[in-house]
Amino acid sequence: MRMVDIISKKRDGGELTKDEIYFFVNGYTNGTIPDYQVSALTMAIYFKDMTERERADLTMAMVKSGETVDLSQIEGIKVDKHSTGGVGDTTTLVLAPLVAALGVPVAKMSGRGLGHTGGTIDKLESISGFNVALTKEKFVELVNRNKVAVVGQTGNLTPADKKLYALRDVTGSVESIPLIASSIMSKKIAAGADAIVLDVKTGAGAFMKTEKDAEELAHAMVKIGNNVGRKTMAVISDMSQPLGFAVGNALEVKEAIDTLKGQGPEDLTELVLTLGSQMVMLAKKANTLEEAKEKLVEVIKSGKALEKFKLFLESQGGDSSIVDNPEKLPQSKYKIDVLAKESGFVSNIVADEIGIAAMLLGAGRATKEDTVDLAVGLVLNKKVGDKVQKDEPIVTIYSNREDVEEVKNKIYKSIAISKKAVRPVLIHKIITE
Amino acid sequence: MRMVDIISKKRDGGELTKDEIYFFVNGYTNGTIPDYQVSALTMAIYFKDMTERERADLTMAMVKSGETVDLSQIEGIKVDKHSTGGVGDTTTLVLAPLVAALGVPVAKMSGRGLGHTGGTIDKLESISGFNVALTKEKFVELVNRNKVAVVGQTGNLTPADKKLYALRDVTGSVESIPLIASSIMSKKIAAGADAIVLDVKTGAGAFMKTEKDAEELAHAMVKIGNNVGRKTMAVISDMSQPLGFAVGNALEVKEAIDTLKGQGPEDLTELVLTLGSQMVMLAKKANTLEEAKEKLVEVIKSGKALEKFKLFLESQGGDSSIVDNPEKLPQSKYKIDVLAKESGFVSNIVADEIGIAAMLLGAGRATKEDTVDLAVGLVLNKKVGDKVQKDEPIVTIYSNREDVEEVKNKIYKSIAISKKAVRPVLIHKIITE
Repeated sequence: MRMVDIISKKRDGGELTKDEIYFFVNGYTNGTIPDYQVSALTMAIYFKDMTERERADLTMAMVKSGETVDLSQIEGIKVDKHSTGGVGDTTTLVLAPLVAALGVPVAKMSGRGLGHTGGTIDKLESISGFNVALTKEKFVELVNRNKVAVVGQTGNLTPADKKLYALRDVTGSVESIPLIASSIMSKKIAAGADAIVLDVKTGAGAFMKTEKDAEELAHAMVKIGNNVGRKTMAVISDMSQPLGFAVGNALEVKEAIDTLKGQGPEDLTELVLTLGSQMVMLAKKANTLEEAKEKLVEVIKSGKALEKFKLFLESQGGDSSIVDNPEKLPQSKYKIDVLAKESGFVSNIVADEIGIAAMLLGAGRATKEDTVDLAVGLVLNKKVGDKVQKDEPIVTIYSNREDVEEVKNKIYKSIAISKKAVRPVLIHKIITE
Repeated sequence: MRMVDIISKKRDGGELTKDEIYFFVNGYTNGTIPDYQVSALTMAIYFKDMTERERADLTMAMVKSGETVDLSQIEGIKVDKHSTGGVGDTTTLVLAPLVAALGVPVAKMSGRGLGHTGGTIDKLESISGFNVALTKEKFVELVNRNKVAVVGQTGNLTPADKKLYALRDVTGSVESIPLIASSIMSKKIAAGADAIVLDVKTGAGAFMKTEKDAEELAHAMVKIGNNVGRKTMAVISDMSQPLGFAVGNALEVKEAIDTLKGQGPEDLTELVLTLGSQMVMLAKKANTLEEAKEKLVEVIKSGKALEKFKLFLESQGGDSSIVDNPEKLPQSKYKIDVLAKESGFVSNIVADEIGIAAMLLGAGRATKEDTVDLAVGLVLNKKVGDKVQKDEPIVTIYSNREDVEEVKNKIYKSIAISKKAVRPVLIHKIITE
C-alpha cells in the first residue's frame, strides 16, 4: 500500500477502504508517513468529503492510535457531553451534578485549553481546595459512590488526532465536516464514553456560523457515534449571544450554583435541561426526553441537584460552603458598570467579541503559557430582546485593574440597541439520529 | 503574509497575487515554508486551477528561484524545443542540425533523465569521442560559429521546480495543468530560450492520454510563454504508437542520420518539418510556416543539413564518419526478428509497452543509477496501417543477450493485427497562440 495512491484515490472522489484509513492513520502516528502527504490527503478530503463508513473508520482509527480510558469498572452507562465551544458556556458545571442526581454516572475528563475563559478544570479550581489530580482508582471509586467526578486529562489519548489537528490548522483544512466530526468523536470515545450528547453551537460566537453548517456537523457526529456503537444525540443551540449572564471563571461557578438552585438565567437553564434530558435518556434513566426533563426539573426543585454539587465538591477536597456563601469565591478588585448610551431593546450581543473582552481582562488563555485570572470577567445585565433604559448598566465588568477603557469600548461595539424587541431562539434543533 | 492564508485563499477559489506566489516559491526554495504547507497548496491548485496571470507569475517565480543560463552572447533568437516525452522520439537529433543549417542558433542544454531510452546526451554518447562537457565559453563560441552545440546540464536551474515536482510526485498533484505547464516553461526559460517550440504528445504512450488534455496543456504553455515575453508555439502530435521505427540509443542515431538524408521514417520526417518550421519562423528566418517548411526541405535535399550534423559532431570531438558508416555505432550481439503470427494490417502498436520492451533490453533507465546499453533496442518494421504477411518480421530486436522471450511476449501483446487498414493522424493540431 502506498500513501500516494491513497491520496490520488481520494482526490479522484474514491471511497477509502478501512485498511487504507488505518494505514494512513497508523503511519502518520508512528512517523512513517510524512506531514506533506497527510496535508495533501486532508485537502483532498476537504474537497471530496468522506462517506459515513469512511468517517466511522477514521474515528475508530484515531481512537486506536493511542491509549483509551477504561471505565468498565464504573457501573451504568457512561454518558459524556461535548460542546463545540462558545462564550460563557457553564453547562458542564451544572449538568454534571444535575444528571448525577438522577443516577447517571458522570466520569468527566476535562482540560484547560485555550479560549475566552478557562476550561472546566480552571473554573473548578476557583473553588478553594478542589483537586482534579485523582488517581484512576480514586476517580472510579468516586463515580461509583457519588455518580460524579472530574479529573484532569492524562494519558496519550488520540495522538493521531492531535497531530492531524495541528497539521490541518496550518494547511487550510480545518473547515472540513468529516475531519471535524471524526476529531471530536474520537476524543470522546477514547475518553471512555458509552454514549455521547453533543451541544453544537451556531451563530457569530460559534465555530459553525450558520445553522446549516451546524446541523451538518451534528448529523455527521450523531451518525459516526451510532455507526461505532456509541448512542449519540445532539442539540443545535444558539451562540449568537453569550450563554447565560456570566463570562469568567468564578463568575460562571456562581452562575452554575444559581442555576442548580433554580435561579439561573433562562437560556442556560433551558439548554441544561435539554442536554440533560438526552443524557438521562441515553443512560436509560428515563424512557422519553419529556420524562427525563420532568425528572431533572424535580431534582432542582427538591434541592437534590444542589446537594449533589456540594457532595461532588467535598469529595474532591473543595470548599462546599461557597454554595451558600458565593462571596468566598475569588473576587475582583474592581466592579465597573457599563451604562447604556440609549434606551430601547438589546438587539445584538456579538458573542465572540464579548469573549475577547473577557479575555482582555485575563479570564482566558491566548497561548498555553498564559495564566488565567479566576476572579475577573463580565456579567451581562441584559440579553438580546431585553428592554433597556439610557444609563442603565447593561454589562458589569469584574476587573483587577482600574483602566478598562479598551474593554468598555469593545463591549459598546459588541452590543446593539434598537427600537424593536426580537427574542432569539435558543434551541434550533434536536437531533436524535 | 502567512502561508496558511495563501492556502485557504486558493482553496476557496481565490486568485493569488504576484507577491503571494513569490512568497511561497521563495519560501519553499529557501526552506522557510515546509513541504506540508506546499503539498496542501498544490492540492488546492489541483482543484481550483490558476488564472493565466497566476500561471505566468508562478513560472517566472520558479525561473528566478535559481541560476539562469545567460545566452546573450549568442547572436540571433535562441529557439528551444521541448517535447513532453514519448517512445522512440529522435526529433532533437534531427532538428538541431536541420534548423541550424538555416541559421537558427541552437544552444541546447540536455539531460540524461529516466525513460525507455536514454536522453539526447546518452544518444550522442553512442558516437565515439563526442563530448558534452563544454565550458560556457566553448559552448557560446560553437553556437556562434556553427549555430549548433549540445551541452550537459549544469548549474542550479529552477530549484523551486525540482522541489515542487518531487513533492507533487508523492502527494498526488502531478496531473495539474497549471503546475505541469509552469514547470516545463520555467525550465526552458531558465535555460535561456528567447522563444520556445513545444511538442505535446497525446495517446497511450504520452503523459497526456487524451487529445483534449494535450490541447489544454499546449494552450496553457503557449499562453505562459507569450505572457512572459517568450514567443511560443506548439504542436499536438500522436504518441499512440512509437515515433519512427527505432527505439534505442545508437539505433535512433542511425535513424536521425537517415532522416537528415531525406530517407527517414515518414512520421518522424513530418514531425521534424512541422516543429522545425515553427523554430525557423520564431527565429525570424522565414515569414510563414509554409516558407519555413520549404526551406527545411531544401536543406535536406541539398545535403546542407547532413553537413551541419557532421560539423556539429566534429566540433564536439565526435567521429563524423559514422554518418557514412553507421556500422561504426555500437552494435548489439544479437539481432532477432519477431514474426507476425497472422496476416492483415497492423491496427495498434501500444507505444509505452514497446518502450518498456526496449527498457527490458537495457536501452533506458528505471532509476538514476542504471547504466544504459547504447547498442540495444527495437526497430519496428511495420507501423500502424501497414500491411503484414504471416511470418514476416514485424519487429527486430537488437540485444546483447540471447534470451529475449519476455521482450518478445511484450511485443506480441503490444501489437494488434486486424483485417482493416487504419492510418493514424500524426499532427493533431498546430497551436500558434
